[in-house]
Amino acid sequence: MSLANHFELLGRDGDARTGLLTTAHGTVRTPAFMPVGTQGAMKGLQWQDVRDAGADIVLGNTYHLMLRPGAERIHELGGLQKFTRWGGPMLTDSGGFQVMSLAQLRKVKEQGVTFRSHIDGTAIELTPERAIEVQRLLGSDIAMQLDECVRLPAERGDIERAMQLSLRWAERSRRAFEGAPAANMLFGIVQGGDIPELRRTSACGLTGIGFHGYAIGGLAVGEPQATMLAMIEEAAPWLPMERPRYLMGVGTPHDLLEAVARGIDMFDCVMPTRNGRHGMAFTRFGQINLRNARHADDPRPLDEESSWPAARDYSRAYLHHLVRSGETLGAMLLSGINIAYYQSLMQAMRSAIAGGVFQEFRERTREGWARGDIASR
Amino acid sequence: MSLANHFELLGRDGDARTGLLTTAHGTVRTPAFMPVGTQGAMKGLQWQDVRDAGADIVLGNTYHLMLRPGAERIHELGGLQKFTRWGGPMLTDSGGFQVMSLAQLRKVKEQGVTFRSHIDGTAIELTPERAIEVQRLLGSDIAMQLDECVRLPAERGDIERAMQLSLRWAERSRRAFEGAPAANMLFGIVQGGDIPELRRTSACGLTGIGFHGYAIGGLAVGEPQATMLAMIEEAAPWLPMERPRYLMGVGTPHDLLEAVARGIDMFDCVMPTRNGRHGMAFTRFGQINLRNARHADDPRPLDEESSWPAARDYSRAYLHHLVRSGETLGAMLLSGINIAYYQSLMQAMRSAIAGGVFQEFRERTREGWARGDIASR
Repeated sequence: MSLANHFELLGRDGDARTGLLTTAHGTVRTPAFMPVGTQGAMKGLQWQDVRDAGADIVLGNTYHLMLRPGAERIHELGGLQKFTRWGGPMLTDSGGFQVMSLAQLRKVKEQGVTFRSHIDGTAIELTPERAIEVQRLLGSDIAMQLDECVRLPAERGDIERAMQLSLRWAERSRRAFEGAPAANMLFGIVQGGDIPELRRTSACGLTGIGFHGYAIGGLAVGEPQATMLAMIEEAAPWLPMERPRYLMGVGTPHDLLEAVARGIDMFDCVMPTRNGRHGMAFTRFGQINLRNARHADDPRPLDEESSWPAARDYSRAYLHHLVRSGETLGAMLLSGINIAYYQSLMQAMRSAIAGGVFQEFRERTREGWARGDIASR
Repeated sequence: MSLANHFELLGRDGDARTGLLTTAHGTVRTPAFMPVGTQGAMKGLQWQDVRDAGADIVLGNTYHLMLRPGAERIHELGGLQKFTRWGGPMLTDSGGFQVMSLAQLRKVKEQGVTFRSHIDGTAIELTPERAIEVQRLLGSDIAMQLDECVRLPAERGDIERAMQLSLRWAERSRRAFEGAPAANMLFGIVQGGDIPELRRTSACGLTGIGFHGYAIGGLAVGEPQATMLAMIEEAAPWLPMERPRYLMGVGTPHDLLEAVARGIDMFDCVMPTRNGRHGMAFTRFGQINLRNARHADDPRPLDEESSWPAARDYSRAYLHHLVRSGETLGAMLLSGINIAYYQSLMQAMRSAIAGGVFQEFRERTREGWARGDIASR
């Protein structure tokens, strides 16, 4: 049985696409970058900053939230959108990825994954059905199926086993999702590591089951960018054209540009906030390390043409001082600057695709990054 | 030679006073609470938040800023107000207090204090003259004399020696300040520990030298509140009525209320931001520990009648979750809530003094704190 489609494709330019995804909490313009609000908060930013930066949708982490404060509690408090006061569209992951990377004494079985909480050691079982239930309790607009993600490089046998298990979990997730509110969506996740044939098998298997949208998972886990892009190229042709495609956990601005060129509509990544906390700024001149002594006496802003006030108004000297002094304000300002840069990049890509000039935009943008930062003075 | 007076006393109610202090960067309504922007930044807050909360003036720490990024560098970059983009009035301390509490291998001599930087071990000499020079380079609107502050309890001999040295440093500071821009101010600092007679000697000595304003230092260093208030009562009558009085490093909302009742006009303290980082909120119900489990399921805001959005809009459950999870947003929201509460308290005191109802206000406010937080549900 096919699921209702909440995605409207507005335009294409080559393989790049622009569209609108409608959720119960608002409309998402695609290609979209989703800032990551791990534990129900965006590190270093107020929710209003996230909105002002241009984000339509954010991601919440099921693993973290189910452990603390608990999915049932968030449900009682009106759902994640109300609890956090973000109020807009939210996608939640299934918890699987964090179970693999954070939890202790992890055991993957056919039924699901058992693990101990990294906070207090409580034993927990996460099945495909429980992952859907938790996400429904959180009130997420877009839920993800539980999957098993393998870190690369890995043996073909391990990759295939995890991919097949993920497919069976996809089917159980889909059944568990029956009866969810009509506006809510469930995405399947293509696995298959760096093996083209397995990516195709996974994509076709998921399409056969039928989802509101399709994610490509198990990438940005240690492989070169070329491998990641090749895997997108393998999977994309097997996914239904009219459904949204989400590349999970990616990435740098350059990754986003290249993935959009290959037909990806949605992204999430902690990079803009995490790198911001470490003194790195993303700009149209590429990445700039504010910790570097060259900025210590520089009264110029990061980018005087930025539409984001902090990138335009504060001197590099002040940002450098804040970073070197470990002041929270440095992390706050750079996180905002980076989220705003990511959102401005997405907006520019949407406009370029709509205007049929994506290829020119892509080249110009890469040139800017390659040219690098303005000269020291 | 008497210094120009930039302070206008607008009203009195008992010993409590309200007035206006005019600086080159704007006017300060008194009684005023100065949030502390230690290293040129307010922990967890954007400068606009500080302004929105109602602060007219902030404090910058000379010790921190002279070590990093350096006073000469800040001067080259246009002064502290421009460097930080706070833009409003700024008071700087002399650096003496932090030298005493943070620096290594500290030696106090007649000439000044020598120490090693806690950041990189550089040997530095801070004299009364250099403290004035550094503050002039920073561009502070109100500079403080270098003094020696003794932690209580202490021997009378030690307290007296430090007080007399501080008086001689006051005289040298005053001379070093000659030629400063006419809008800039220099405050002397009353020392004398918990010994009434020494407080009087210090106050009279400073008044003889003549300053734009007078601070009471060496309090909130371990003594009971009653001692602190008694020392204010000892010193205040010897200070010129028409000059501003600043109680350094104080304190809790209750300290502020009682000190204003005794004629103090200005305060600074890290408490609202520091306690905010530790999950404590200051409210009209007293201090509330958001870490406490009683808040975990509570959908009610901290104070629905607050004029500060975060105190009114976010649930206690969400604040509790942020604090327990160690999310930066918790520290950011609570720091803002606390600074806003302090500023609203100052505004309410200014209105009550102007309206001649300070005593009633003082009793009502203490009753609110004593009644405590709303009942759990």
